[in-house]
Amino acid sequence: MSLSFELLATDGAARRGRLTTAHGTVETPTFMPVGTAGTVKAMLPQSVAETGAQIVLGNTFHLMLRPGAERVAALGGLHKFMNWPGPILTDSGGFQVMSLKELRKLDPDGVTFRSPNDGSQHRLTPEKSMEIQHLLDADITMSFDECTPWPAEEPVAAASMRLSMKWAERGKRAFRDRPGYGLFGIVQGSTFPALRAESAKALLDIGFDGYAVGGLAVGEGQEMMFATLDTTVPQLPADKPRYLMGVGRPSDIVGAVKRGIDMFDCVMPTRSGRTAQAFTRRGELNLRNARHRDDPRPIDELCACPACTNHSRAYLHHLIRSEEILGAMLLTWHNLHYYQDIMRGLRTSIERGTLGHDIAAFEAEQGRGDIEPQ
Amino acid sequence: MSLSFELLATDGAARRGRLTTAHGTVETPTFMPVGTAGTVKAMLPQSVAETGAQIVLGNTFHLMLRPGAERVAALGGLHKFMNWPGPILTDSGGFQVMSLKELRKLDPDGVTFRSPNDGSQHRLTPEKSMEIQHLLDADITMSFDECTPWPAEEPVAAASMRLSMKWAERGKRAFRDRPGYGLFGIVQGSTFPALRAESAKALLDIGFDGYAVGGLAVGEGQEMMFATLDTTVPQLPADKPRYLMGVGRPSDIVGAVKRGIDMFDCVMPTRSGRTAQAFTRRGELNLRNARHRDDPRPIDELCACPACTNHSRAYLHHLIRSEEILGAMLLTWHNLHYYQDIMRGLRTSIERGTLGHDIAAFEAEQGRGDIEPQ
Repeated sequence: MSLSFELLATDGAARRGRLTTAHGTVETPTFMPVGTAGTVKAMLPQSVAETGAQIVLGNTFHLMLRPGAERVAALGGLHKFMNWPGPILTDSGGFQVMSLKELRKLDPDGVTFRSPNDGSQHRLTPEKSMEIQHLLDADITMSFDECTPWPAEEPVAAASMRLSMKWAERGKRAFRDRPGYGLFGIVQGSTFPALRAESAKALLDIGFDGYAVGGLAVGEGQEMMFATLDTTVPQLPADKPRYLMGVGRPSDIVGAVKRGIDMFDCVMPTRSGRTAQAFTRRGELNLRNARHRDDPRPIDELCACPACTNHSRAYLHHLIRSEEILGAMLLTWHNLHYYQDIMRGLRTSIERGTLGHDIAAFEAEQGRGDIEPQ
Repeated sequence: MSLSFELLATDGAARRGRLTTAHGTVETPTFMPVGTAGTVKAMLPQSVAETGAQIVLGNTFHLMLRPGAERVAALGGLHKFMNWPGPILTDSGGFQVMSLKELRKLDPDGVTFRSPNDGSQHRLTPEKSMEIQHLLDADITMSFDECTPWPAEEPVAAASMRLSMKWAERGKRAFRDRPGYGLFGIVQGSTFPALRAESAKALLDIGFDGYAVGGLAVGEGQEMMFATLDTTVPQLPADKPRYLMGVGRPSDIVGAVKRGIDMFDCVMPTRSGRTAQAFTRRGELNLRNARHRDDPRPIDELCACPACTNHSRAYLHHLIRSEEILGAMLLTWHNLHYYQDIMRGLRTSIERGTLGHDIAAFEAEQGRGDIEPQ
């Protein structure tokens, strides 16, 4: 066993687990803040840890182009480079490369593309992606796959998934197995249950340390995403961690945990923090809105983050209108803290066996809208 | 006495003092980080305090336009608004208004100007500036003056200075005296010793809680600035704090402390932090420079700031090249920390009576250039 995953409790399909990696332990369900270019944007790494995050995500695509995987390796690996001593999961670069559209050319062996930074030519293959993630020293390496666009006709989705399965097998052969390090396979197949089942079986035959569900949250909507999870998750082994890639809003995460997902990542809390959007237990707030201009209250008086403990909505509104960096810093911190609050709550609910009840309360609270002044 | 200022020690013309305000005590010589729009850019207020800063500066001009002084007052004053419980000095708005050039019209009573934010028309007079600084709840209020442009012919400098002295007198009458709050006069007169002396005398006749030297660091160069201090500072009373406005680089501050200045402010450490420039005991570094790309060393291994404690030059270089907010955050923190290190050192040197020797060592160290790898 390269990574160890312990199942501590279940509540329906939901799981409370513990993932042990070379750089530490992760309590699941977990949310991984996205540290694209070796930094969770607008946050000191110790502040990321203070929100309760135990693992962060790094981007192969961004880091291979700048500063370069060899350079990161020479500087001691990504943990040391970004001063994040805890576990790191790296994506494979596949998703970003596919998004380049006219700057990339796909062939059965891999993808050739031009850097959006300087136009230089690069190539990613399953083997190369493994090599880069190894140089970055990722605790969890992701298979290099083609993220099927949505919507896709079934034959297109099938061909894309089958290519990804071939690449997954090549990646598995190239991956350097070591204690505390692991490789995850990625289930594709768009929203077609039969393709998802075929993909899951192919990955199980290869054998991975964890299983991700890819190609969702790409525009299909929450209902179809949940329907896909309903048919896909039961195909995955109970004794391995399950990761829903790129998801999502708080209600997406809650619904996916209920369906047996253990790990999440999403740019939403960090990106929204830089665009004046705050996530709260009572839904979303846009702090740029003039109605916050004179409001002495915090975003949420029950939140323990520095933005809510020390600052008024009026001040945050002022920072945003003045385009001050501190506005992005405080809202990012709040959003990451809130996401970790959700995960803490979900873990406790599963331990206590009260998940159904607690999710109903969460949904009612979200539906009540912004807290009005007393 | 509105503010209390205690002289603890002297070393030549240099002074070690303690200024007590309504919101706390400031050990002098002191450097005040600039919090233009109610935030020291890219820093949490508690991080500003962690660097050792005891007082920050707020800008009347920026805050009157956004969010508005009445709004800040309704929200509990600037200390509460920006969550800085310590002392605050506000400038008068004069310097920024004069910089507007074609957007402002000066008359003997005050200045009418258009907001660069939205084109709305505003007016500042000595009385209005006092009122705004009162609404902001500044511990130290600055006189509203015309900052004489440089270079200026003697008759122009004289007329400008005399207008400022009339405005200083009007401000004094309008200022609401309270325990722990004080008003500073500003000596003008460009680089003409006779005008500086006339200005100092005029201010002393009015009577202020402290005396600032204005109109310097505007292009005249360090030598002429020091020459102006050499003739001006002896005109100022020993029992009141002396503030050199808008200064400066480390060597400017050191030279001015030697000449008897107690207080400083400058955007340099914060602005430079957002443009990849680091101040160090061995001079200045541009972290954007490719020579830092593979350098595992910190900016300065003797510096105790988070940038130097936790991060390599290579990482900081990467953040800057990637235009990451964290780069601005870390370099701002480093620069503010280094400026406070200088002030801590100067205070200790004056206490020990070793200022001359210590300044020689400081200058030798600065002159040696960047620390080379071992």
